[in-house]
Amino acid sequence: MEHRFTDDSLSLHTDLYQINMAETYWRDGIDQKKAVFELFFRKLPFDSGFAVFAGLEKAIEFLRAFRFTESDLTYLKEELGFKDDFLGFLKGMRFTGSLYSMQEGEIVFGNEPIMRIEAPLAEAQLVETALLNIVNYQTLIATKAARIKSVIGDETALEFGTRRAHEMDAAMWGARAAIIGGFDATSNVRAGKRFDIPVSGTHAHALVQAYRDEYTAFKKYAETHKKCVFLVDTYDTVRSGIPNAIKVAKEFGDKIEFIGIRLDSGDLAYLSKKARAMLDEAGFHDAKVVASSDLDEYTIMNLKAQGAKIDVWGIGTKLITAYDQPALGAVYKLVSIEENGKMTDTIKISSNPEKVTTPGQKKVYRIINQLNHHSEGDYIALDYEKVNEQERLKMFHPVHTFISKFVTNFDAKDLHKPIFENGKLVYKNPCIKDIKQYVQENLKLLWEEYKRISKPEEYPVDLSEACWNNKMQQIHEAKIKAIKSLD
Amino acid sequence: MEHRFTDDSLSLHTDLYQINMAETYWRDGIDQKKAVFELFFRKLPFDSGFAVFAGLEKAIEFLRAFRFTESDLTYLKEELGFKDDFLGFLKGMRFTGSLYSMQEGEIVFGNEPIMRIEAPLAEAQLVETALLNIVNYQTLIATKAARIKSVIGDETALEFGTRRAHEMDAAMWGARAAIIGGFDATSNVRAGKRFDIPVSGTHAHALVQAYRDEYTAFKKYAETHKKCVFLVDTYDTVRSGIPNAIKVAKEFGDKIEFIGIRLDSGDLAYLSKKARAMLDEAGFHDAKVVASSDLDEYTIMNLKAQGAKIDVWGIGTKLITAYDQPALGAVYKLVSIEENGKMTDTIKISSNPEKVTTPGQKKVYRIINQLNHHSEGDYIALDYEKVNEQERLKMFHPVHTFISKFVTNFDAKDLHKPIFENGKLVYKNPCIKDIKQYVQENLKLLWEEYKRISKPEEYPVDLSEACWNNKMQQIHEAKIKAIKSLD
Repeated sequence: MEHRFTDDSLSLHTDLYQINMAETYWRDGIDQKKAVFELFFRKLPFDSGFAVFAGLEKAIEFLRAFRFTESDLTYLKEELGFKDDFLGFLKGMRFTGSLYSMQEGEIVFGNEPIMRIEAPLAEAQLVETALLNIVNYQTLIATKAARIKSVIGDETALEFGTRRAHEMDAAMWGARAAIIGGFDATSNVRAGKRFDIPVSGTHAHALVQAYRDEYTAFKKYAETHKKCVFLVDTYDTVRSGIPNAIKVAKEFGDKIEFIGIRLDSGDLAYLSKKARAMLDEAGFHDAKVVASSDLDEYTIMNLKAQGAKIDVWGIGTKLITAYDQPALGAVYKLVSIEENGKMTDTIKISSNPEKVTTPGQKKVYRIINQLNHHSEGDYIALDYEKVNEQERLKMFHPVHTFISKFVTNFDAKDLHKPIFENGKLVYKNPCIKDIKQYVQENLKLLWEEYKRISKPEEYPVDLSEACWNNKMQQIHEAKIKAIKSLD
Repeated sequence: MEHRFTDDSLSLHTDLYQINMAETYWRDGIDQKKAVFELFFRKLPFDSGFAVFAGLEKAIEFLRAFRFTESDLTYLKEELGFKDDFLGFLKGMRFTGSLYSMQEGEIVFGNEPIMRIEAPLAEAQLVETALLNIVNYQTLIATKAARIKSVIGDETALEFGTRRAHEMDAAMWGARAAIIGGFDATSNVRAGKRFDIPVSGTHAHALVQAYRDEYTAFKKYAETHKKCVFLVDTYDTVRSGIPNAIKVAKEFGDKIEFIGIRLDSGDLAYLSKKARAMLDEAGFHDAKVVASSDLDEYTIMNLKAQGAKIDVWGIGTKLITAYDQPALGAVYKLVSIEENGKMTDTIKISSNPEKVTTPGQKKVYRIINQLNHHSEGDYIALDYEKVNEQERLKMFHPVHTFISKFVTNFDAKDLHKPIFENGKLVYKNPCIKDIKQYVQENLKLLWEEYKRISKPEEYPVDLSEACWNNKMQQIHEAKIKAIKSLD
């Protein structure tokens, strides 16, 4: 079966309803109205106390390249029935708006805008789906990686998930997100090339099967590679795998660098201790034990509690698919729109209280205590508020408003960076090493109680009084207006 | 940050260890040995009674295009330290092997080879990771879609998951897999263009917010679109959303096709019944109720049991991420390799009995009872066995071997189709409509007990006696050999 359209562009990577809405805006002449959308998630994934934002580099690529190709337009016309006049509008469209975003690696929490898009209404609408698709996945994996790395500590963490990833982009951007979250390397060579990240790998069971015995396979591998890690569980880990690895390491001596052995099945606590003892007894005190097999932060914590002797951790499925919660629910909501030349706030009401949006153009500040250099929480204010000029900041819970505190001696760090301004890219992506380091440095600003793997404390994400009052008023007005429209 | 390599090719979409092994094979002169690998999963996902295979079209694309680009080779040399002589070997490499595969849409079960790759050892090794990455995800989603569709029945099923998919490839190939599994359309326009599948969508909350009231928003949408579905839950579904939709539908009369209303939050059982009653009372008996909001097969079954009046089901997160089990564990195992000019079987042993592989070149037959036209089970035989020539077939459970039956009057359908033969593509992908229809027709061959959503019966996947005996012998020999190599 030959497909009619074999070329591809990402501008159609959107839900059809975005194009339908863009058409209404354009035919009604409001497509150029300035609109402000915010991208945020409501609830942290994995019952985590924090998340790690990733996805900006790809979002920038997407926005820079945003244009409908001739074949996109042909498809929209001939297969979906859109009219020529509207397609002419789409044809000339570029992203001419502004994007303010947290930087990649920022520690982020629920209900705070990660990105703020200020753009002509139709443009802002047409880029929504792709931005959510990018940010939802990459943030999910960077967060999962940071959690796993926090349990692994100073030992090495390797991302091995490509074969279980959700198709190829997930393998690639997931590998990158794993590095951002604190991992040391990936097994995916293409990701290594594309993103300039370290790549790691040894051999698989197939090598042993191809030579039909471990001794020959390890020997052939040692003849052809300087650095050797031998996979020892093809037949019997303790009775043949480890002894054969040691035998070959001894025979080759200085001719190879015997990095160690890898376990990929069985009880990793028992086997790693046994392997350690066997390697030590053979004089290979520096040889490492690499372990993999359906690991996640909980299993690793358990293995460590049982005294497992593992030096290098390989994590596949549970990381790359975010197995215990494979979706982050970031949304993209209109918070303000031009009305007769001035910006007017908008709201979405819902019978689920947590789904009611917070109207208005906002900024997010991280409130750093100058005395202990820890964060007091995040503070969401309307964009005209001068948070840093205040002597004393009142922070209160946005739902349970009686929970409140006053903060003095603080620095309010504006978490939004200008990325695009009126269509022009004004931001330079940091290299991935710097992003990774940024995560670790910023995690230090959080008290330990927010970073616990299980049942962490809730980090405060508060609204300014002006922001809260505005929300309450908008809810009131919207309800009245919705009903009145039926009169 | 500018990356050094900005071009991309899929040949490096592999785990590093595959390249390491290929190097050992090549330096040792065994890279051209004929090897047979099988791709299969051990356990059905979602506790399902069956799975639906998808991924072949993309696998074909990948194998056809398989070659290392100049920049791939530069990367391998300069960043990973591979030597020129070996890179010269990689440079000339194409996929010259044979691929036998089930066709897309085939109903498939645990422990039966979905694909059989017969190729020079190094080639077969280098394509493993990508094939698994493709088949694991697409099969997972086609299976999930088939489960959900089986509960939806004749009503319309729409795939709405792009924003929650694991990056862009998952959104695309997931949309296609959803159609294969029985869905009617996707919201992803790019998938519609690329794969020639129906696209569906209306408008979002943002439209209502942009016009600041539902009445105006619905009216503007009706002025600009012939077919109208109004999203009614931006402010208050029952008090303003549905009444405004009805008001606009009445005002526009024949000028629009009032398809119906969409619910996206709240209690869908209550709201759909309420909506149905309000639409009927207004005379819109043909108007449909479209519903979405975290739906999966279990919630849909519950809503139906409560008499929900939903005509069109939009499924997002739970389908596109395979939320309740986001990974399928397909593996790729060497089952036979050339040894002194003839094929010799190989095995991988494990302390987990279900991880022991079944050696030898095999075929999979679906045993169809000629009298009742239902399947008696699948039968895995060594490739020289003439299954169709047998009068009476003994089928027995491969673990609990005392569970056995004799089958007569059967057709044994060989499920493997030749796709590539010695590097040449000999297969033409069917169009997606035919694949979708193939699924539904083949599901009819299964008794209902295998298709139940919860706690289905286990479908028989049996080994021939020759295959089973060969496995037992190989286990015995491998264990002896593994230990002996230490003498």
